[in-house]
Amino acid sequence: MTDQGPIEMKPNILFIMADQLRADYLSCAGHPSVKTPTLDRLAAEGVRFERAFCNAPVCGPSRMSFYTGRYPASHGATYNNVPLRVDELTLGDYLRPLGYRVGLVGKTHMRADIEGMRRLGVDPESSRGVYARECGFEPFERDDGLHPDGAVDSDLPYNRYLRQHGFGGDNPWHEWANSALDDNGERVSGWYLRNAHLPARVPEPHSETAYMTDRAMDFIRETGDAPWCLHLSYIKPHWPYMAPAPYHAMYGAADVSPPNRSVAERGNAHPVVRAFRQHEESVNFSRDEVRARVIPTYMGLISQLDHHLGRLFDFLREQGQYENTLIVFTSDHGDFLGDHWLGEKEVMYEEALRIPMIARLPGGVRGRIFEQMVESVDLVPTFLELAGGDRHDHVLEGRSLLPLLKGARPPWRDAVFAEMDYAWRPARAELDAAADGARAWMVRTERWKYIEYQGFAPQLYDLESDPVEQHDLGTAAAYEAVRRMLADRLHDWLRTRRMRKTISNETVSALTGSARRRGYIFGAW
Amino acid sequence: MTDQGPIEMKPNILFIMADQLRADYLSCAGHPSVKTPTLDRLAAEGVRFERAFCNAPVCGPSRMSFYTGRYPASHGATYNNVPLRVDELTLGDYLRPLGYRVGLVGKTHMRADIEGMRRLGVDPESSRGVYARECGFEPFERDDGLHPDGAVDSDLPYNRYLRQHGFGGDNPWHEWANSALDDNGERVSGWYLRNAHLPARVPEPHSETAYMTDRAMDFIRETGDAPWCLHLSYIKPHWPYMAPAPYHAMYGAADVSPPNRSVAERGNAHPVVRAFRQHEESVNFSRDEVRARVIPTYMGLISQLDHHLGRLFDFLREQGQYENTLIVFTSDHGDFLGDHWLGEKEVMYEEALRIPMIARLPGGVRGRIFEQMVESVDLVPTFLELAGGDRHDHVLEGRSLLPLLKGARPPWRDAVFAEMDYAWRPARAELDAAADGARAWMVRTERWKYIEYQGFAPQLYDLESDPVEQHDLGTAAAYEAVRRMLADRLHDWLRTRRMRKTISNETVSALTGSARRRGYIFGAW
Repeated sequence: MTDQGPIEMKPNILFIMADQLRADYLSCAGHPSVKTPTLDRLAAEGVRFERAFCNAPVCGPSRMSFYTGRYPASHGATYNNVPLRVDELTLGDYLRPLGYRVGLVGKTHMRADIEGMRRLGVDPESSRGVYARECGFEPFERDDGLHPDGAVDSDLPYNRYLRQHGFGGDNPWHEWANSALDDNGERVSGWYLRNAHLPARVPEPHSETAYMTDRAMDFIRETGDAPWCLHLSYIKPHWPYMAPAPYHAMYGAADVSPPNRSVAERGNAHPVVRAFRQHEESVNFSRDEVRARVIPTYMGLISQLDHHLGRLFDFLREQGQYENTLIVFTSDHGDFLGDHWLGEKEVMYEEALRIPMIARLPGGVRGRIFEQMVESVDLVPTFLELAGGDRHDHVLEGRSLLPLLKGARPPWRDAVFAEMDYAWRPARAELDAAADGARAWMVRTERWKYIEYQGFAPQLYDLESDPVEQHDLGTAAAYEAVRRMLADRLHDWLRTRRMRKTISNETVSALTGSARRRGYIFGAW
Repeated sequence: MTDQGPIEMKPNILFIMADQLRADYLSCAGHPSVKTPTLDRLAAEGVRFERAFCNAPVCGPSRMSFYTGRYPASHGATYNNVPLRVDELTLGDYLRPLGYRVGLVGKTHMRADIEGMRRLGVDPESSRGVYARECGFEPFERDDGLHPDGAVDSDLPYNRYLRQHGFGGDNPWHEWANSALDDNGERVSGWYLRNAHLPARVPEPHSETAYMTDRAMDFIRETGDAPWCLHLSYIKPHWPYMAPAPYHAMYGAADVSPPNRSVAERGNAHPVVRAFRQHEESVNFSRDEVRARVIPTYMGLISQLDHHLGRLFDFLREQGQYENTLIVFTSDHGDFLGDHWLGEKEVMYEEALRIPMIARLPGGVRGRIFEQMVESVDLVPTFLELAGGDRHDHVLEGRSLLPLLKGARPPWRDAVFAEMDYAWRPARAELDAAADGARAWMVRTERWKYIEYQGFAPQLYDLESDPVEQHDLGTAAAYEAVRRMLADRLHDWLRTRRMRKTISNETVSALTGSARRRGYIFGAW
């Protein structure tokens, strides 16, 4: 765990991500009904960050921040399926040279920069090309988890697996794992919320969550004693909200918490928030009937995930690797589930921005709940420090959590940042914003959340007096000085994005004032 | 000149750059003594932009903005020799697919992103590799113009040329083109300002400026009728300040304009400016003796350049290409020459930021002097529109000047921007700034110039009442509202840097609201 350690002593890294899992939907985080005994135990053996935030409340850009250690304004992949520039480095690029096998099981939402690769002549089938396409990971099992019939990869391994086990069809993912039988015995699709209460046709041990867990074990088994970093990235509890038995019925309407919403917040709403409230997912999740049907399944999917993490951690113990592996569990963003009259994510409320973050470092502190604000961009620096690599602080924009995990109390940041690019959503058309004019930037301090929008007034929440974000002070005259102070924070943050990424700070320092000794004599009489 | 034009009708582009040539050192720009008849004629046949600005007042980042059409905050090469990211596209990348041969004669200051190329397996000797290394240009003759004895390329073509003509030695560039004989017949070096009054040992027809002009003619002759874009990029009048006869003696001390400086501005100076004033080049250029010796040679080098541009334009006429070629003449930045008690450039005064910009479009408007503020980043969009290419407005940050050149009066920008990264300079050590903490950002409107510094107070000048920038209002209480307004301009500019560069705005627009028709059904009951 130090720079000097021999390579065989390097700890493994198990970097687990759920998709669309809210920070407050864990029993260790205080949720009144959902059961997550495995994650509770992990938190008890390690630490839980009570205030962890994604840097963009939607899959693609959030994940690219996790994988690059850089904010969306820096890595540029500001929305789902925006290709990550071919010269952005990721976790795998940093860890592989340190002797790690860096594998992926599950989802990244990476879209390859095929045009950039073509221009530079990078063969997509070469090993370099595969890494460039797959976000720096060895794609042991790449599966982004959403497979419409019209767009399904004909070679999807999970579909082949299902067929081998007798669950056939053109797209078994849809027909079995994300379909159910209704009261009439008709097959109905998990794409539709009204079917969320039905059990998936697939038996639980063959569900996606079970299968991906098995594949993670395959990777670990196959890797043996070499140091590894595995990104195990589950699609659940992301939609389609459909759980296999018995998880489809584990929770009921009585287990659903009341929504965080008020009639007042609909009046005089921010234009962008109002436009998002007109989206179909927001209209539907604002209906109690929808919440009562979907949220129990959302919780069931979480408990199912928790169960399989238990299997995985048992496996690690059997392999003798549990005490040589840093385990981090997180999610790419949250889920509104009707809060603020919204469905899905993207808008900058805490329900979408806050993410679970549990870390167990062998020999590290145990059972601590940290109040320090941490961000997605912090994980690459954490893993890199653990692996004994350079800091790359001219590129990486997060900070290592390792000192915290070891019990140190370093001075910490007092603000986190996130970004939003809603150019792809109907809200943009509704608001008549340009394709490159549908953006927002957020700074959240201990007390305040401030969101600037391109072309619209800002939002401001006093999280001390209004932690549920019901009173938008974005245009309140009395808060002008607060908004100015926070705009200055955003401004300073924007100024210092790490774009000078082709030269290290150490190299710059060594060159400072060196022109003359290199023979470039100027200004000398 | 339109999208529909057949390829053989495409106009050629002659993109000429001087190095360190101040905007006001042309006779057509009103200089009282320097003579530039060729450029005066070019301006009379075309247009001159009275207010053209570089986007960084130092070679490397300024040039990368010229070549990429992007601000330094976007392209990331914020100082000399910071490698340009391998996936940044340049002029050549844009024009070559449109049928252009895009050649370089002279300087780019490009440092290749060798590490980025290595990671992606781009062979530096392949054609792709050469373009990636050479800033997208075909390096017909790459020569950055500064060749210390200890670092000279043993294969420098200009040195081979000099040797072939009888000017031998290990480094004829230094020994002949940038050395002189003193009164005792001893060879003395042009690296030292005290020798600036002496004639270079090389006969004028074999000087760098003459040679590069000949090489430009070679390129044009060789290319024949195919459409071409030639970047002819002279090192002069950049130091070493040494001119061949008769240009070394064309001007004298009586031709030197008084400096723009005051005792008052030294008192209570901005810390960064004060630190730059301690640099050797500033101390020396603050001496009248130095100005009297160097500036006549600076002017001689300009007149020499003008003479060779006359040769080149005559050649174009002889070749029948003059009326099918857009000619643009500019410079990468200015030169303080002792103004503000400074030497060189880098600091954000007009003497460094303002650049000459003359454009002659066949069939375009003639003799006009434009007051519109234009920037380095505008040239790529200009050339691209002329060549009939896509706008690439998700990447390019400038705007095409072509409508202005054709006589249209489009609404225009009301501010220009520039950046500074002085991490490499002694000033940083003097100020104890971090290697990534030595930056400044400027916005200049019709009336104001506002400069923010990392870690220091801003500067503010009222260009209406104080066009010579002698009264810094950066901390004057009465100007707080003005500074706020300008900080907001900078903030808005920083927010909207074009980092989402892997997907076009047209593609985004086509995808907006398309999730459902692509099969991704979410939020539907």
